[in-house]
Amino acid sequence: MFMGASTKQGYEIAEKSREIVRSLIADKTKELSNEERSIVERIVHSTADPEYADITKMSKDFVRASRNSIENKKDILTDINMVKTGINKYPGEVNCYIKDERTVTIAKEYNITRAAAAIRVAAENDFEGIAVVGNAPTALLEILNLFNKGKINVSSVIGVPVGFVGAAESKKALEQTEIPYLVTEGPKGGTPVAVAAVNSLINLKKE
Amino acid sequence: MFMGASTKQGYEIAEKSREIVRSLIADKTKELSNEERSIVERIVHSTADPEYADITKMSKDFVRASRNSIENKKDILTDINMVKTGINKYPGEVNCYIKDERTVTIAKEYNITRAAAAIRVAAENDFEGIAVVGNAPTALLEILNLFNKGKINVSSVIGVPVGFVGAAESKKALEQTEIPYLVTEGPKGGTPVAVAAVNSLINLKKE
Repeated sequence: MFMGASTKQGYEIAEKSREIVRSLIADKTKELSNEERSIVERIVHSTADPEYADITKMSKDFVRASRNSIENKKDILTDINMVKTGINKYPGEVNCYIKDERTVTIAKEYNITRAAAAIRVAAENDFEGIAVVGNAPTALLEILNLFNKGKINVSSVIGVPVGFVGAAESKKALEQTEIPYLVTEGPKGGTPVAVAAVNSLINLKKE
Repeated sequence: MFMGASTKQGYEIAEKSREIVRSLIADKTKELSNEERSIVERIVHSTADPEYADITKMSKDFVRASRNSIENKKDILTDINMVKTGINKYPGEVNCYIKDERTVTIAKEYNITRAAAAIRVAAENDFEGIAVVGNAPTALLEILNLFNKGKINVSSVIGVPVGFVGAAESKKALEQTEIPYLVTEGPKGGTPVAVAAVNSLINLKKE
């Protein structure tokens, strides 16, 4: 199992792609740890967009905090089901509450997005682990809101929502907290970036 | 329901984002039909990457062929489950055979990727409709291979696999067939692009 490949041909394609990615972004990743470099390479591999080597930023404690959470099989929370679907081979639980009945009710009652309401449902369900936002800035802002109130227990946050409305600002806000984070600065991000970061963390060798 | 939004706040964000996207890429989309422009705008909206307005190409018959398929509720085939998960509100069937037992067997027997084997399984299951490749160039090449042999019945192909190994070439090969197509030329593409194209087609008003 290497970057999603499960056959000889798939493995060879993934390995060749990884070599190309590595050489494309070598200059931009030389300051990173091996683990951080591996995560950035996988993000560029999954988007074919070398700009992600410039805009992907991690706090110093991100890899350690995330790996601890994964080794303890804590839950992973995703903002939308596409991210959940892409997370392979995690022995713990991966949860997404976007289609939960309570989410629909809370969204209507408080006039917030379903993505934000789904985070409240997770917090009420005593979520503890890595939170992954691949789509909705409002989900990321709700995590920060609940964190500031001491109402959500996040090991780390992968904050890579996408879009021209609020995404960049929500990621800047995450960078200013004490939460261990990975973000893609600016409007870019998305589900493949989120999935690449999580699957890379899951596959990292234990240190 | 507008670009995935289902609440007032979500709708407002989506609408504002769409306006920003429209102004960012107006120059690049002026030669397109309203339907084609709508598809390209949604792709840029979902990636926050205006370059997709340069590299997204459709054959002249793509929208009509795809809409016919959708109006007749023909199946939609996806290469991986992330794409399937992202397709909302389609009254017909959306199928993905990547985890099918037959796929695993065929991949081993013929030493091909699971993504390619999954396309063979679909063809054996008498698939007829729109084929959507958001990830694996080998899946797209297998569609072309089966099409040339008269063994797969595609209404149109959304070919947006991503990566530095084979993706650009597979999309160029699709453009040279008589199949109605949408591609993103070069290495870029991915699951959000595929999902944006399909959901945009589903939401287009009947002409």
